[in-house]
Amino acid sequence: MNNLLKDIEEILLMGPGPSCVHPKVYEALSSKTLGHLDPHFIKIMDEIKELLKKLLNTKNNLTLPLSGTGSAGMEACLVNLIEPKDEVLILINGVFGKRMQEVATRLGAKVDTLEFEWGTPIQPELVREKLIDSSYKVVAAVHAETSTGVRNPIEKIADFFKDSESFFLVDAVTSLGGMEVKVDEWNIDALYSGSQKCLSCPPGLAPSSFSDRAFDSIMNRKTKVPNWYLDMSLIGQYWQQERKRVYHHTAPINMLYALYQALVMFFEEGPENVFKRHMECYEMLKSELNNMGLKMFVQEPYQLPMLNAVAIPEGVDEAKVRKILRSDYKIEIGAGLGPLAGKIWRIGLMGHTARKNNVETFINALKEVL
Amino acid sequence: MNNLLKDIEEILLMGPGPSCVHPKVYEALSSKTLGHLDPHFIKIMDEIKELLKKLLNTKNNLTLPLSGTGSAGMEACLVNLIEPKDEVLILINGVFGKRMQEVATRLGAKVDTLEFEWGTPIQPELVREKLIDSSYKVVAAVHAETSTGVRNPIEKIADFFKDSESFFLVDAVTSLGGMEVKVDEWNIDALYSGSQKCLSCPPGLAPSSFSDRAFDSIMNRKTKVPNWYLDMSLIGQYWQQERKRVYHHTAPINMLYALYQALVMFFEEGPENVFKRHMECYEMLKSELNNMGLKMFVQEPYQLPMLNAVAIPEGVDEAKVRKILRSDYKIEIGAGLGPLAGKIWRIGLMGHTARKNNVETFINALKEVL
Repeated sequence: MNNLLKDIEEILLMGPGPSCVHPKVYEALSSKTLGHLDPHFIKIMDEIKELLKKLLNTKNNLTLPLSGTGSAGMEACLVNLIEPKDEVLILINGVFGKRMQEVATRLGAKVDTLEFEWGTPIQPELVREKLIDSSYKVVAAVHAETSTGVRNPIEKIADFFKDSESFFLVDAVTSLGGMEVKVDEWNIDALYSGSQKCLSCPPGLAPSSFSDRAFDSIMNRKTKVPNWYLDMSLIGQYWQQERKRVYHHTAPINMLYALYQALVMFFEEGPENVFKRHMECYEMLKSELNNMGLKMFVQEPYQLPMLNAVAIPEGVDEAKVRKILRSDYKIEIGAGLGPLAGKIWRIGLMGHTARKNNVETFINALKEVL
Repeated sequence: MNNLLKDIEEILLMGPGPSCVHPKVYEALSSKTLGHLDPHFIKIMDEIKELLKKLLNTKNNLTLPLSGTGSAGMEACLVNLIEPKDEVLILINGVFGKRMQEVATRLGAKVDTLEFEWGTPIQPELVREKLIDSSYKVVAAVHAETSTGVRNPIEKIADFFKDSESFFLVDAVTSLGGMEVKVDEWNIDALYSGSQKCLSCPPGLAPSSFSDRAFDSIMNRKTKVPNWYLDMSLIGQYWQQERKRVYHHTAPINMLYALYQALVMFFEEGPENVFKRHMECYEMLKSELNNMGLKMFVQEPYQLPMLNAVAIPEGVDEAKVRKILRSDYKIEIGAGLGPLAGKIWRIGLMGHTARKNNVETFINALKEVL
């Protein structure tokens, strides 16, 4: 049998994730596997926790990567905080807000929503109105809506949760590592992300964080978390640094090596430099697309630097363009999802992909294809 | 900061998993990341499905690796098959049977159990009696009980499910890839395993399989699966070969490369040769331990070749022995869990670890330490 791995080509990953992986992260990934209770592996776990806390600007002790992709992070945040009949508000302006609604509904929550047109941001003043006289246990929003390229003003919504009893839950899958995420300053009680976006790891881990108040609430649930695999009270015991670790499930060792390496490199470059690199690539892409007569789908102040939604020009077979980019130029870009299918391309500039030479390569290829 | 990955030593992994990873699997793991909808990646997914079906001796179309560790596989099998108040029987003789009881209880099932002393096997005749006049929706058992080293006679219990309405659910985490697992012949409706045992991949994937009858039942649930991340009706749409794939969550691409490579190597060596290699290493280990005056914890016919529970000799500080093996000999073996803590060592001979030179290395080290 022919081994299919031999035919893997290096693709410039400019879709909505996974992004390109740095050679050092590949190297980390194939470091020798250790046991999940090995003393040296535990040192690596401890360091991952510390680096994640620094990345998330939080003191939250319950900050760790969950053993699943970003969607497992979403599931974990909701299943731990929600008990049946709890009132939950989801702010929706894209696929991932909708997905939170679906997950919360399945968990038996009374789900209320506040919806905004796809491609436009959440409007803080409408959220404020909605919160008046309300008693939501959880209010959830997406920071960087990967399906539309919209940056939601989480830092403004954050103000409403300063002295609130509600838990503020944020999806930072696409934002984390590409722009500032300030868990403590933004009053965030639960947050999840993914390894394969601006952190430029392969997919498979969901960096997550829970505030002490959220953790207390989990420890005082009326019912056990109906998801043993993602029960934070148990997972926390395996990841705790202070006391004896308790085996829960076998951690995805090698994926954690990769995340560790990605975090080390993030801080070696420096957060400000990393965010600046993302901004500069985005400015360059936008300007080049503009020169070609292409339009961004999202209004200027709400555009995400790491995920650019571009309106498909009239008369263009968008799927054919993506296919040719992939086959002839070894470049992957993303299609639109849901109501935006056929209307936008999604061009990712995340992590190791966010380099000017990649923008140049892409623009030259797109010019030739169009 | 000192990079902790540089200090990773190569450890001979002879615990209950992870097992040693073959160099070719490490190489596969660090193959260039592709998009999760990339045409070449889809070819690899299709081939993984076919190889898993062959490994599991099944025609089940819903056979695929789930994006989590073995425990996520357990969660998936139970959460998809169980609805609140469903009657479930769990056959328990170790930690992983107990864990199934816990998971099923959290999901709102009416859980009945049949327990056997830890270190002894499930007794089929007692199961048969228990099933008379019963109407369990799901009956679950562990094939290779990793916590005790017991091989449960799944092939005998299987007979009771020939024309049964109950779903037969089997944990094959430690058995798969080290001994015969025959899903169709054994009337198994749902099965999960892990990548890090006899398949010798790093941890992070749960190869799983559902019969057509189980899948029909999932598609006809009264309530949606209260776990979006592990909903087989959605995951199946991403892994289906026949129709258009629907994006669910971003697959753990590089882990899937590793699993693909491990499966390719399994069939290159040939199932019979792999199983024979496991048996020969086990026979060698047992004979050497016997020469040293050490006793196996499990009776002969129920011993697992890939996980050997050894009674701690009187007066020996078992934790100290493990510590010295790890620090001075770079060998990891496992401790006992739960009621067997301090009573047994668990010596794994799984996958790439199951080689005679490893048994020799271990025995020589153990002789020196004791």
